[in-house]
Amino acid sequence: MRPLIVLFGDSITEESFKTGAWGASLTNTYSRKADVLVRGYGGYNTRWALFLLRHLFPRNSEKPPAVVTIFFGANDAAILGSASQGQHVPVDEYKENLKKIECSPTVFIVLITPPPVGEDSRNENAGEIVPERINEVTGLYAKKCIELAKEMGLPSINLWSKMQETEDWQNKFLSDGLHLTPEGNDVVHQEVTRVFSEAWFSAPDMPYDFPPHSEIDSTNPGEAFQ
Amino acid sequence: MRPLIVLFGDSITEESFKTGAWGASLTNTYSRKADVLVRGYGGYNTRWALFLLRHLFPRNSEKPPAVVTIFFGANDAAILGSASQGQHVPVDEYKENLKKIECSPTVFIVLITPPPVGEDSRNENAGEIVPERINEVTGLYAKKCIELAKEMGLPSINLWSKMQETEDWQNKFLSDGLHLTPEGNDVVHQEVTRVFSEAWFSAPDMPYDFPPHSEIDSTNPGEAFQ
Repeated sequence: MRPLIVLFGDSITEESFKTGAWGASLTNTYSRKADVLVRGYGGYNTRWALFLLRHLFPRNSEKPPAVVTIFFGANDAAILGSASQGQHVPVDEYKENLKKIECSPTVFIVLITPPPVGEDSRNENAGEIVPERINEVTGLYAKKCIELAKEMGLPSINLWSKMQETEDWQNKFLSDGLHLTPEGNDVVHQEVTRVFSEAWFSAPDMPYDFPPHSEIDSTNPGEAFQ
Repeated sequence: MRPLIVLFGDSITEESFKTGAWGASLTNTYSRKADVLVRGYGGYNTRWALFLLRHLFPRNSEKPPAVVTIFFGANDAAILGSASQGQHVPVDEYKENLKKIECSPTVFIVLITPPPVGEDSRNENAGEIVPERINEVTGLYAKKCIELAKEMGLPSINLWSKMQETEDWQNKFLSDGLHLTPEGNDVVHQEVTRVFSEAWFSAPDMPYDFPPHSEIDSTNPGEAFQ
């Protein structure tokens, strides 16, 4: 009955229903207008995400999503030689994988780049000599993501660039150099809502699923539901 | 693939994805294990909720919910003669309506009573001479809800009683004498999680939908997905 929004991505998507996080905020923004389901897989890169596609988005689905956010790259960009190298996917393969994920012509897809890396916090936390994430390297993945979006004519959110426009983004938006603070979650929520609204998917313009209670005549309630 | 939890109720359910609210917390608790959809209708009473049943829970659904929380009564208990009297439903009809909502033998249903009423805040906000809500009256609805749960052998949460066990519950758990503060939302989240867990629906005992990334062999990822 309501259109379905699916959030597909890594830990930043999996954790998007923690207190103040962007998935919950999006659900609230589309309250009584669209449903939101989270398909976030902590630690996953795009190579592993491909194994999930036929399960998460079966071709014969009775109710396919209307909108899907695809939000990978933070793990693909892990540095070879670091403790996280098992998650690494070369940047050209990352782009090819994203292209395979974006496979349905009937679904409104929004590509989201990985956020920037707060190198000091990140590599301090990991306690490794070879850094596991480097901001400039993650930036190359963000660039490929935006490049693909342009080639495919898809809307996209360059979170890597957007966040770095704000002073002290490393501490303001990132909790451990990689995952998001409540303020960082607000940026994602605002950007996703903006991109949805610029397309045909604007919450204020969408109808309520059922009448507001103020429109129900208590002496003849059935009328409002006809 | 994952079991589906549906949250059916009034504004306290509709608002359950605001920052720190119980629906979002529940979604996070069941992350990668169950899906949560919100079906909250601000201002609705059980009489109006009946009009939604065949739309929200069609008999021929391909994917019926595994679990449904039914959380009404705060509006049914509105006082006759007050500005909110249009929402009033007599307490015996409230019980009958709840019984009609609880109509599926294959779904795990949890009945939740309305929270207590913080009369000072509530009637101050409404600015009316005849109070629109009275705590003892709402308590009669809570009693009927628990009575029905016992008759039907359903699990239930007596939120009306539970919240009043804590000192200063009026300000600690209620934002306007009726809706929930983040602390009030925590109580609902904890109680719902407890009741789910006491049945067969315990998040820690449920499998992940796909392997944790630590179980994926980066040299042979396909193996983990077989």
